[in-house]
Amino acid sequence: MMLTGVIPPVCTPMTPEHEVDATSLVRLIDHLLEGGVDGLFVLGSSSEVAYLTDAQRALVLETVVGHVGGRVPVLAGVIDMTTPRVLEHARAARAAGADALVATAPFYTRTHPTEIRTHFRILADRGGLPVYAYDLPVSVHTKLTADLLLDLAADGALAGLKDSSGDDGAMRQVILGRPAGFSVLTGSEITVDSALAMGADGVVPGLGNVDPHGYVRLTSAAARGDAAAAKEEQERLVRLFQIVRVGGSRMGGSSAGLGAFKAALCLRGVIDHPTTALPQIPLNADETRRIEKLLAAAGLL
Amino acid sequence: MMLTGVIPPVCTPMTPEHEVDATSLVRLIDHLLEGGVDGLFVLGSSSEVAYLTDAQRALVLETVVGHVGGRVPVLAGVIDMTTPRVLEHARAARAAGADALVATAPFYTRTHPTEIRTHFRILADRGGLPVYAYDLPVSVHTKLTADLLLDLAADGALAGLKDSSGDDGAMRQVILGRPAGFSVLTGSEITVDSALAMGADGVVPGLGNVDPHGYVRLTSAAARGDAAAAKEEQERLVRLFQIVRVGGSRMGGSSAGLGAFKAALCLRGVIDHPTTALPQIPLNADETRRIEKLLAAAGLL
Amino acid sequence: MMLTGVIPPVCTPMTPEHEVDATSLVRLIDHLLEGGVDGLFVLGSSSEVAYLTDAQRALVLETVVGHVGGRVPVLAGVIDMTTPRVLEHARAARAAGADALVATAPFYTRTHPTEIRTHFRILADRGGLPVYAYDLPVSVHTKLTADLLLDLAADGALAGLKDSSGDDGAMRQVILGRPAGFSVLTGSEITVDSALAMGADGVVPGLGNVDPHGYVRLTSAAARGDAAAAKEEQERLVRLFQIVRVGGSRMGGSSAGLGAFKAALCLRGVIDHPTTALPQIPLNADETRRIEKLLAAAGLL
Amino acid sequence: MMLTGVIPPVCTPMTPEHEVDATSLVRLIDHLLEGGVDGLFVLGSSSEVAYLTDAQRALVLETVVGHVGGRVPVLAGVIDMTTPRVLEHARAARAAGADALVATAPFYTRTHPTEIRTHFRILADRGGLPVYAYDLPVSVHTKLTADLLLDLAADGALAGLKDSSGDDGAMRQVILGRPAGFSVLTGSEITVDSALAMGADGVVPGLGNVDPHGYVRLTSAAARGDAAAAKEEQERLVRLFQIVRVGGSRMGGSSAGLGAFKAALCLRGVIDHPTTALPQIPLNADETRRIEKLLAAAGLL
Repeated sequence: MMLTGVIPPVCTPMTPEHEVDATSLVRLIDHLLEGGVDGLFVLGSSSEVAYLTDAQRALVLETVVGHVGGRVPVLAGVIDMTTPRVLEHARAARAAGADALVATAPFYTRTHPTEIRTHFRILADRGGLPVYAYDLPVSVHTKLTADLLLDLAADGALAGLKDSSGDDGAMRQVILGRPAGFSVLTGSEITVDSALAMGADGVVPGLGNVDPHGYVRLTSAAARGDAAAAKEEQERLVRLFQIVRVGGSRMGGSSAGLGAFKAALCLRGVIDHPTTALPQIPLNADETRRIEKLLAAAGLL
Repeated sequence: MMLTGVIPPVCTPMTPEHEVDATSLVRLIDHLLEGGVDGLFVLGSSSEVAYLTDAQRALVLETVVGHVGGRVPVLAGVIDMTTPRVLEHARAARAAGADALVATAPFYTRTHPTEIRTHFRILADRGGLPVYAYDLPVSVHTKLTADLLLDLAADGALAGLKDSSGDDGAMRQVILGRPAGFSVLTGSEITVDSALAMGADGVVPGLGNVDPHGYVRLTSAAARGDAAAAKEEQERLVRLFQIVRVGGSRMGGSSAGLGAFKAALCLRGVIDHPTTALPQIPLNADETRRIEKLLAAAGLL
Repeated sequence: MMLTGVIPPVCTPMTPEHEVDATSLVRLIDHLLEGGVDGLFVLGSSSEVAYLTDAQRALVLETVVGHVGGRVPVLAGVIDMTTPRVLEHARAARAAGADALVATAPFYTRTHPTEIRTHFRILADRGGLPVYAYDLPVSVHTKLTADLLLDLAADGALAGLKDSSGDDGAMRQVILGRPAGFSVLTGSEITVDSALAMGADGVVPGLGNVDPHGYVRLTSAAARGDAAAAKEEQERLVRLFQIVRVGGSRMGGSSAGLGAFKAALCLRGVIDHPTTALPQIPLNADETRRIEKLLAAAGLL
Repeated sequence: MMLTGVIPPVCTPMTPEHEVDATSLVRLIDHLLEGGVDGLFVLGSSSEVAYLTDAQRALVLETVVGHVGGRVPVLAGVIDMTTPRVLEHARAARAAGADALVATAPFYTRTHPTEIRTHFRILADRGGLPVYAYDLPVSVHTKLTADLLLDLAADGALAGLKDSSGDDGAMRQVILGRPAGFSVLTGSEITVDSALAMGADGVVPGLGNVDPHGYVRLTSAAARGDAAAAKEEQERLVRLFQIVRVGGSRMGGSSAGLGAFKAALCLRGVIDHPTTALPQIPLNADETRRIEKLLAAAGLL
């Protein structure tokens, strides 16, 4: 399995009581599949994985794997602080039928490149599924260097990379140095056309929850060599991506970003509630109206 | 319950197979109680909480609470990324009979002061036990400000603070501004005499695993107003604390620090194995010999 | 003047005694002009501006402006901690005949977005030349946000941006939101093709000292719409850019990067000495040989 | 010369036109000397050194050295990015008659411990005056480690340390490991009693501009072994130190802190204008009133 195309990190709809809203989740999956996506990434940062209890993580995974029924690959985030805890999540993901694991470097602990290598190697050995490295320095506070990733790619410990570092230059060094079959996926919403032009295989855009069709059009245009069309679609999506800044400085970046995606999904009729997990701050009515305007401007209402 | 005195963050002894070594753990508890400590903090950073699976966390907590049998208070770390996951750990801690909870600000997510306030308030409301804030910016990547802590202290959401920020000036602002009954505990190993002189109520030193008698002598000297004796004891412990730097730059800070504590506990005959959790790097024979020399110099062998 | 094309940040050759080597500097300018560059940026980070005394800065500026004689625009870095000191450098640059100023946000001080705005506005008012904002968070420890840059662009305080942040997504937001005539220059060596495809106007690559012809071919290919040729040239330059990692972890990033550029310029016969300013660590013979091999592989020897 | 006691970092009074107000500066020096201080540190962060042009730096230094006339030692900050630029400032300081230099690690550049060692060694060799290391990670973005400082102390490159890192534990390791004659000065305003109890030789408090008598009483009490009196004085000064938080989040930390010191000096009648250098944000009338209340509460009006 060499992952390519659009693989959105699936939002986790919630009820106003902060329980997983499985009905909305199924509708969201249908919305994404109907949009033409090539895979699904559940239990990533955009899924609010950091906020989900283990029982909620299991419910999400089972709901998605069950509903997808093998139509597209399902990647499962196994986000936790260190190897033993990540291995527990890997066990659950494998049991639920996920196709691959997505793991970060250790966090919370004060770690070291040698330890990060060991971490991914153990996960590859014992996890029972292909492992994608998740480079997200804004959360993990460590950057996965090209050297480290290429070492792990060369010895087969990693099947690929989800690069959410925003450092496309470093990603390009991985693209140029990687062995055959190693999949590079950008986590960017706004440099997808250029990442694909550099040789990235696919995209994992949080904004793809809101507009999967847009990202599918973008990757399709890139695949057929129509750079102008890819760019035009990308620029529309860059403008739409302003929804994540509506929350501004009165809340954290997670509240603003995830709240915007969920508000947009509500406004588009895909999910029932814009609720985000605690202790995030909800968007207010005025902010929601501004998101509505940006959706309209992007042709999505 | 107003916590005071020496409350070591209890190391978690492990077998060479990386399972919890309950026999050694019980011996460690006896070593600490015999040393005269006033409480025990389990499942903190020095306990390798970030590396323990939930089952291992439960085993540690039950072993300690059961063996202590109420002789001293047992605080339980509930270390996880956000409120819902922390609440799960709080439930387990309450069920196991812990006396209080120790929680950090949210991490991994991009958070905000208002969200941190909400986080602690929800934990206070629903956790069922007194809550201590754990300020550990090196892991959490957020500093809990004096203003935020004093607000939460004033409305009763927090019972106290474990300050491992290394910023004694900020801690002092909390000490001077706090309401009666709010307990301030320093997590420092090497500024305990001055923290107590400032008005801190107690100390949670990782090095207290290795030398509980030393910290008890130090706090006792401070309590009876013998600043010179407290300083002398503290300076001996500052020299002993060099053990955490023996691992140097070939490993992460957690490997070096926790590995040193466990190596010292082995050398002192308290626990059976110096094993640390994966993916930490073990100390080698030469490094262990250097730790042995520092123990000897401190009069501990 | 709307800057476009290749505008290399000119290295400052030095004698073994750490004085400016004006003879080599003139040869370097000839090498760059012969390579077809569209402008020159002196006294930037790649010029070791942080290491040059004011007298050396003046000598560099006069040498370059004098030798260029108006054939291409010369931009002058005015790198210092705050507005009053930057204004002094601006005065010197104007007197020496520079065409534009390049300034960072304040550093060393603990600053604020409002203060950064004021800083650039004062510099625009009193500097007497067009001002380019220099976004270099690795040195300045502040990221210039798209919002801040677009505000300053809208009221005419800034003529353009040199973006060395590595965050091409953020740069794209500036490109899409900027007023007409606002020049966006990427400081990246390795994502130039994609930056140009996004709409950037030019490139300021340190590696352009070593291979100006390569960057000119790359921008020319992009300008005539030959994305495949641009990409091929870029990928060759990405491989060449490995020279900056030869120094590895035994020195700082500035020593490794600037030392590599100068070693390559020596090996190519452009400058006389690979000397970098104090307290940088020189590359050794083995490292220089590895740079020689990378130059040969790139067809530059 | 082994520095001890109270050595305030002298504020630089300015006219409303942002020129050095030498008349006020002389009055400030008299205020400090009359307060009983043991030395003066000019051209440090509290002096707004980052904002002063070289001509202003020279004027400040000459004014202070001339007015002091040898009554107490005058230390001169030589704050700049790298060794060559720092050496220029050292030359000026020596020419003006300063008694010692205070220098940070290199900043703006991407540096390395070996380079930092070289930097201080060159400065010691060529600076012509005793060198104090200035540890200020909030500005310099590097922490000077105890190992590095003790190496430089052992080979005589450093005469002492001004520790403004806020990490009193690390400072203590320097105190315990230093050779005879190496002076350790804390830059903290609020942990002076404990720093002195640990063995620090003196204090360089920005707040000492406002209340030199308070810091002199504090160090005198500590020197005669009256810990209770030292603590009481310190706690009054901790409360007074709240003035630096009055500016809050609408400005940078430098604006808030330096603005508060200058506002307080105006309110006490020592200097004529509260003006801070550009691009700092001035405190408004309401904020000035809050500072006035804190001064009154501290018994200073």
